[in-house]
Amino acid sequence: MSNIRHALSVKREDDFAAWYQSVISEAEMAEESGVRGCMVIRPWGYGIWERIQRLLDDRIKVTGHDNAYFPIFIPLANFEREAEHVEGFAKEMAVVTHHRLVADGKGGLKPDPEAKLEEPLIVRPTSETIIGDAMARWVRSWRDLPLKLNQWANVVRWEMRTRMFLRTSEFLWQEGHTAHADEAEAKEHTLRMLEVYRACAEEDLAMPVVAGEKPENERFPGAVETWSIEAMMQDGKALQAGTSHYLGTNFSKAANIKYQDREGGEQLCHTTSWGVSTRMIGGVIMTHGDDDGLRVPPRIAPHQVVILPMLRDKPEDAALIDYCEELRASLIREQALGEPIRVLLDTKPGKAAAKRWDWVRKGAPVIIEVGGRDMENGVVSLLRRDDLWNLDNGKPAFQTPSREEAASGMAAMLEDIQNTLFTQARERRDANIRRDITTLDGLRAFFSADAKFPGWAEVEWSKPTGEALEKVVEQLKEMKLTVRNVPMDDAGATGTCIFTGEPAAEKIYVAKAY
Amino acid sequence: MSNIRHALSVKREDDFAAWYQSVISEAEMAEESGVRGCMVIRPWGYGIWERIQRLLDDRIKVTGHDNAYFPIFIPLANFEREAEHVEGFAKEMAVVTHHRLVADGKGGLKPDPEAKLEEPLIVRPTSETIIGDAMARWVRSWRDLPLKLNQWANVVRWEMRTRMFLRTSEFLWQEGHTAHADEAEAKEHTLRMLEVYRACAEEDLAMPVVAGEKPENERFPGAVETWSIEAMMQDGKALQAGTSHYLGTNFSKAANIKYQDREGGEQLCHTTSWGVSTRMIGGVIMTHGDDDGLRVPPRIAPHQVVILPMLRDKPEDAALIDYCEELRASLIREQALGEPIRVLLDTKPGKAAAKRWDWVRKGAPVIIEVGGRDMENGVVSLLRRDDLWNLDNGKPAFQTPSREEAASGMAAMLEDIQNTLFTQARERRDANIRRDITTLDGLRAFFSADAKFPGWAEVEWSKPTGEALEKVVEQLKEMKLTVRNVPMDDAGATGTCIFTGEPAAEKIYVAKAY
Repeated sequence: MSNIRHALSVKREDDFAAWYQSVISEAEMAEESGVRGCMVIRPWGYGIWERIQRLLDDRIKVTGHDNAYFPIFIPLANFEREAEHVEGFAKEMAVVTHHRLVADGKGGLKPDPEAKLEEPLIVRPTSETIIGDAMARWVRSWRDLPLKLNQWANVVRWEMRTRMFLRTSEFLWQEGHTAHADEAEAKEHTLRMLEVYRACAEEDLAMPVVAGEKPENERFPGAVETWSIEAMMQDGKALQAGTSHYLGTNFSKAANIKYQDREGGEQLCHTTSWGVSTRMIGGVIMTHGDDDGLRVPPRIAPHQVVILPMLRDKPEDAALIDYCEELRASLIREQALGEPIRVLLDTKPGKAAAKRWDWVRKGAPVIIEVGGRDMENGVVSLLRRDDLWNLDNGKPAFQTPSREEAASGMAAMLEDIQNTLFTQARERRDANIRRDITTLDGLRAFFSADAKFPGWAEVEWSKPTGEALEKVVEQLKEMKLTVRNVPMDDAGATGTCIFTGEPAAEKIYVAKAY
Repeated sequence: MSNIRHALSVKREDDFAAWYQSVISEAEMAEESGVRGCMVIRPWGYGIWERIQRLLDDRIKVTGHDNAYFPIFIPLANFEREAEHVEGFAKEMAVVTHHRLVADGKGGLKPDPEAKLEEPLIVRPTSETIIGDAMARWVRSWRDLPLKLNQWANVVRWEMRTRMFLRTSEFLWQEGHTAHADEAEAKEHTLRMLEVYRACAEEDLAMPVVAGEKPENERFPGAVETWSIEAMMQDGKALQAGTSHYLGTNFSKAANIKYQDREGGEQLCHTTSWGVSTRMIGGVIMTHGDDDGLRVPPRIAPHQVVILPMLRDKPEDAALIDYCEELRASLIREQALGEPIRVLLDTKPGKAAAKRWDWVRKGAPVIIEVGGRDMENGVVSLLRRDDLWNLDNGKPAFQTPSREEAASGMAAMLEDIQNTLFTQARERRDANIRRDITTLDGLRAFFSADAKFPGWAEVEWSKPTGEALEKVVEQLKEMKLTVRNVPMDDAGATGTCIFTGEPAAEKIYVAKAY
């Protein structure tokens, strides 16, 4: 195996953070824009986002939500109102103060002092308050409930330290907001949307997650309950990949979202909100990437199969392209994973080997090379991105099915790749969760500085609140750890709390996190 | 016909502008947001935009473009550079100057003076310059060309007078940007994308358009050629519904977009850009709306068929819902206009008649009501939105096919509605174009103040330039007219220019415009 020459120059085990940046750059997913904290999402990265968007949007629509669009600017007054109702909301936001540029007299431009806004506008960090205003207008009676809205949009939070996809000042996301007549229905809906996220992460992104409730100290400001899905990255850290909040009547009080019940009485609505963002793409990279670049799960791959004719800039090329075109035509008639197979016939000028490695780094699930000899023999040279190397000779593990077999077997192959990526990730995660730690010292040892990629610990705690919880949070912080969540499928605690020594109330996941 | 009681209180012929606002509000398409110049796009309006987006996106992808995403903020310096290269670019933009809020000491919030940006950021009015920067990074050699990018995003232009969908400070759009090795290819591509817009407008939106070139004075600042599609609204005014620009090397000079040619020499790229926006929804309203509200062409209708069981809040409702559910199940198995039929079974509480009129105002193409008696007889009560009234008795023109006929005939019915809307609009447009005006007085009379909804005039002109053109523009301006475009299918001019008296060079469309 030592003779394998991997496609990236940085390996995961040598420098995980540098490897992550290298995948993003080598797979041409995104790049710095020159604007602080904002990235350019390049076509391959954006194509993956479009796939995630479409699959998740279908799931959100099936659960009865309509998409709508709300203004990018939010009046300052909305945040003043929120500051009254919600403690600890972040104030790092982009503030618009002028509406015109004017020549500065030195050959440049400046904000026109004559065009200063009377009230500054905020570029939305979330649309919570402005959607709340709309809900207050739209909800009149119990007949209007539940009101289920979703928005796909860009939002801006001024971040000091940014990392592409994981934390950027501008990011793309969806935010769902619903209003319900009562607590039970709103709570049920909070969990229903959490389940939508779990299914999307596991079935579409092939990214195993733990769904559970966040502890009190990790709740979204203003939420009564915050739930999350947490995924384990290959460096053992946790990535919070999506959250769903039950907001009680806190936001409906602030925004005045009321309805007339069947008896004619006035009631506050119970609201929920939930969101996932382009951060999920960071999760895909750190779940499925390897030392050759990205591996994109077929369901979210913009192109599932890339066909590369080995062109030589000669008249024979035409026949080769025809041969490949016929393969493409057969493939797109097939369905895989419930949709027509997405195929790119890449005839861009360039050396065949260079193009192959470009697609390896980008992580196209299946790469099919076709040369003159393949054509003569009626076959193709096929590479599975999830099974790239022949470990015996350190060379790419080409298969050479007939062209017809390649077409007829493709649906099953793509389904197998999707399953393989999920299974690999789940097995790796499960192998990296320690469940036998019962003391704080044990926890400290597991996460000690020389433990490489330690993973997660599932421990029991007494579910402390208030000051007792603050103390636990402080202890964990010293180890650079956080409580990720209380898993829903928790079998129940039986021992003692590793923090307080009291009888344990539940199991929690503890980890370093992004 | 006088006994028809239309669903809207304002009629087109009485007050077209008020009627337009009334459709938007009664069909629950959009509303004021409370943020100056920004609207909330409500689910029905946004659903129509999602349909347009998906259909147009498919067309844009078929022509070889990839979607990407660029930052919402653009450094001031980019506009300083553009101001040097491009005369007359607009300076009404939202300017971000701070990145944090802080308590103002009076219970409110204010921009934190400590968090003033060193260089202001501009909320993109278009992404021309920042995409230009990316192209300059991505294009190295002729092998990288053509580079074909597209972006779906929100943009902001500070507008003083706004009108929903037609002119708002924030709007949603797509902007395509391409770089080519030479002029011929870039010009060809400019027209190819114009044709994509024409096809989308006519085939998807059922909105007939005239494709043609804009005169010199109407060119996008910095463009060598600007082409447009123009649609006639029911008040006779023109709506520019999309533009496609050949930019020569003007933008590649400014952004330094160069490539190495096959001989190793350095060349400037020839670039194009083109865009359509949520403005198109305004076009759909003013093309297809009537005195009962909107009529949505089936291709872009979020729901093509709405089934309304006449529920009575009694146990019998269950059987009625089952009967309707079976109809829905049959319908969604059918394909119409190349896609599975989109059906809503609306079981929301409320009076059946009120719900019917809600869907009439929203313009769902087919509304199917089902009452207990319909169920007993195995039939349904079906309304075509494009053929709403029985003119003999002034009542809704219900058809009563069997449930099976309703399902099996739906694809053909939807296709017929799509065609009918297009044909009606085209016939109305053609009837409202005057082609026999040969004098300025004739033009003045046609567009005189007491001419109601006069339509367009196709006249011949000598294609003046420079000062001569300025004079023509001034003459037209006095009549509140503009040159819309020089139609591509122009048969050639044969007479004299109505402005200069010189021999005519080409035909132009002259109209009042939005």
